[in-house]
Amino acid sequence: MAIRHLTSIKDLSDDEFKILVDRAAHYKALFKSGDSAEFQKNHLKLLGRTVALIFTKRSTRTRISTEGAATFFGAQPMFLGKEDIQLGVNESFYDTTKVVSSMVSCIFARVNSHDDIKALCKDSSVPIINSLCDMYHPLQAICDMLTIREKFPADKRLKVTWIGDANNVINDMALACLKLGMDVAIATPPGIEMDASIMAAAQEVAAANGVTVEATHDSKAASKGAHILVTDTFVSMGEEYAKEAKLKQFQGFQINQELADLAAPDFKFMHCLPRHHEEVTDDVFYGEHSIVFDEAENRLYAAMAAIDVFVINKGNFNNLQ
Amino acid sequence: MAIRHLTSIKDLSDDEFKILVDRAAHYKALFKSGDSAEFQKNHLKLLGRTVALIFTKRSTRTRISTEGAATFFGAQPMFLGKEDIQLGVNESFYDTTKVVSSMVSCIFARVNSHDDIKALCKDSSVPIINSLCDMYHPLQAICDMLTIREKFPADKRLKVTWIGDANNVINDMALACLKLGMDVAIATPPGIEMDASIMAAAQEVAAANGVTVEATHDSKAASKGAHILVTDTFVSMGEEYAKEAKLKQFQGFQINQELADLAAPDFKFMHCLPRHHEEVTDDVFYGEHSIVFDEAENRLYAAMAAIDVFVINKGNFNNLQ
Amino acid sequence: MAIRHLTSIKDLSDDEFKILVDRAAHYKALFKSGDSAEFQKNHLKLLGRTVALIFTKRSTRTRISTEGAATFFGAQPMFLGKEDIQLGVNESFYDTTKVVSSMVSCIFARVNSHDDIKALCKDSSVPIINSLCDMYHPLQAICDMLTIREKFPADKRLKVTWIGDANNVINDMALACLKLGMDVAIATPPGIEMDASIMAAAQEVAAANGVTVEATHDSKAASKGAHILVTDTFVSMGEEYAKEAKLKQFQGFQINQELADLAAPDFKFMHCLPRHHEEVTDDVFYGEHSIVFDEAENRLYAAMAAIDVFVINKGNFNNLQ
Repeated sequence: MAIRHLTSIKDLSDDEFKILVDRAAHYKALFKSGDSAEFQKNHLKLLGRTVALIFTKRSTRTRISTEGAATFFGAQPMFLGKEDIQLGVNESFYDTTKVVSSMVSCIFARVNSHDDIKALCKDSSVPIINSLCDMYHPLQAICDMLTIREKFPADKRLKVTWIGDANNVINDMALACLKLGMDVAIATPPGIEMDASIMAAAQEVAAANGVTVEATHDSKAASKGAHILVTDTFVSMGEEYAKEAKLKQFQGFQINQELADLAAPDFKFMHCLPRHHEEVTDDVFYGEHSIVFDEAENRLYAAMAAIDVFVINKGNFNNLQ
Repeated sequence: MAIRHLTSIKDLSDDEFKILVDRAAHYKALFKSGDSAEFQKNHLKLLGRTVALIFTKRSTRTRISTEGAATFFGAQPMFLGKEDIQLGVNESFYDTTKVVSSMVSCIFARVNSHDDIKALCKDSSVPIINSLCDMYHPLQAICDMLTIREKFPADKRLKVTWIGDANNVINDMALACLKLGMDVAIATPPGIEMDASIMAAAQEVAAANGVTVEATHDSKAASKGAHILVTDTFVSMGEEYAKEAKLKQFQGFQINQELADLAAPDFKFMHCLPRHHEEVTDDVFYGEHSIVFDEAENRLYAAMAAIDVFVINKGNFNNLQ
Repeated sequence: MAIRHLTSIKDLSDDEFKILVDRAAHYKALFKSGDSAEFQKNHLKLLGRTVALIFTKRSTRTRISTEGAATFFGAQPMFLGKEDIQLGVNESFYDTTKVVSSMVSCIFARVNSHDDIKALCKDSSVPIINSLCDMYHPLQAICDMLTIREKFPADKRLKVTWIGDANNVINDMALACLKLGMDVAIATPPGIEMDASIMAAAQEVAAANGVTVEATHDSKAASKGAHILVTDTFVSMGEEYAKEAKLKQFQGFQINQELADLAAPDFKFMHCLPRHHEEVTDDVFYGEHSIVFDEAENRLYAAMAAIDVFVINKGNFNNLQ
């Protein structure tokens, strides 16, 4: 039986993705309840086992949420940063993957290249959870859909508008929104285009679900009537050398009161953090429409859902325990 | 209901502080007993939860004791050093505090400035335990009072003499001693004075409790009749550039046999470690009057007391479970 | 009662060593079974306690296996790398050992010099598990004997041939093989000799057990009829400056098809990893005779055996619980 890994929202059927969001909601309720009997029951699920975090990039939210989720299920998180393990440096990537996976229950991998995620999946004997690569960020998408669901009625048709870079976060978030029946508008600066394969996949999901996805360079048009305005950093880790040029390119793409005024009256503002001033003004970021800190907390429950489905239930969505 | 944080001994009533020392003694007895049923019972108290350690300074004792205490209560310690998290660098201090505190049960913070502790307390949704800042070191004070209590009869009036720098450790230790009814003498080199607000608070506690506190530059006079001689490093982390000048300034403040001979015959020597040769001679440090290693071990139980009272019991001193 | 530490296979009687290998096999079966009741039972053995890893060298396998083993018994692993703790730098080696050992259940130490292991054993109040020093690597030897036992019938007389450097791994492995009744051949390049005290001890064990140990510079002669061909890196961590000279010296000592053809038809290839190309060719390393990844996984169970015997059972081999 092939191992199921969590590499991208793209790999999941609509129903599978919905199950992941449901599980995140389930574990949030359970965690918030503080119910001692439930805590003890869940603590047995991975008792005595370890969860490896192979992180080549620093991360606050991903690390804390992953370690918290592992802990909830009784597993010991094992953080392996770039000082601890260097994939492909002191021994082959293959050898390291074989060895690490033989001693842990799963691997959360935060790497640079999606090719590294693919290589890990090929060689690992345990599930790989993609915890950010240059193409995808599925845990963030699970988290974001949980957060949206908490803020709007289930039967309301929503428009989600991304203003910013064409990056890993929106790649998975667009697919996630479309799978759940939301309309998606993506406004990137001229010269920055969404990945063609992602847009093709997105249009396919949109068509199947009777919703729409559009990519544009007009941030105002995209913001009109949006229920969700969302952005992310303009200058990703490792791109600091190009900061000045990027900021020039992104002029007109800061989410501010002007764009907010175009959105639906009950719109919410989201951001996966860390936030910098160039992408959103303080009045929006800390304003009454902002749900960024609920969103951050929900990373914990997204990680719980991933461990639950892919590790404890071995990717068997149809028969979750 | 406002969250209670542990920022300084200054913030605690005498009774509250005594309760903390009592709890430390309680958990020491329990831990030493190795009683399996008690271990299991306590392990459920924070089962499935995490304890964050945000440490901008390296620390052996504080880290090991905190991680050990979290473990005892079933929580997963999460060490976030300056390579892992940089408060105020990649995002605002406020944002990081909001995010981290939304996913953990409490934060042990070892920072440079007491202002950082105050900012953490203001923004955090979970208790902050000050694990050393430039003004206070409350966990050390709990530990030290437990250690003194173990070595002397409860009804004996004690004189505690500090010889050394006017630093964070003596700030909290002086208040701690006075709250427990001990007399305190503090001898610092000329040119180094205790913080005025601390001395004012100390005199107030002393007056209320019928004991005395004096600050002097005469290390010999201060040592006379002392039941406890205590010191700390002369050159704090980050001050290495000024080492030579500091050592000159501290001449006559090394605790040696000459000063020990002035103390009470049954005096004890204490030091919160790490120890360097300039502040105490080997014959005193490793001699029969030294209780430095008992003191170090007691850090574990001080951390347990802090977690017990501020996290498990949510700062509710009057109704401890 | 003196504390028993695990410093080297040399310190163990034949029976004691066999018990350690048996325990590793026992815990492997138990871990593989996934039996929830057994997991819960074992989790109580060190519940609420910590296991310190003082590692002055980076390590993937040793760290993951040790943390995994501690976790299985309910203990919290505490990784203290050279950024976290520096033995003998900021305070005396003695002071650090006293303090750390007063707050943890045991210390796994990966250090440079065997003298450091000896110093730790002298001063620690809890068991020290040598997790690699310049002279010994006992956990690897336990692991390797478990791996060999799994691949050959118990009553078969085996010849184990080491081709490579005279290092810490073969020091303990030679003694381990001889204690279990295997013949040992060690082929090192001219100019590299086994440590005389190790060879003396090895010959003593060999004589007592009716087996043979030989050291040679002829890699072909040593390979003849071998059931196990084993090697290790030629250039140890810290020796990179001498890489070119070392590679020249090791010509003719790469394990390749030519040497493999001299071995027994059912021979197995072993390597403690990480592997570099100079010591073994891909066709052998990844070939059907290679058991290197089984060997790596077994490090987990070797660490469990060490914790079980030295920590949980306090080195009392005769009455294991």
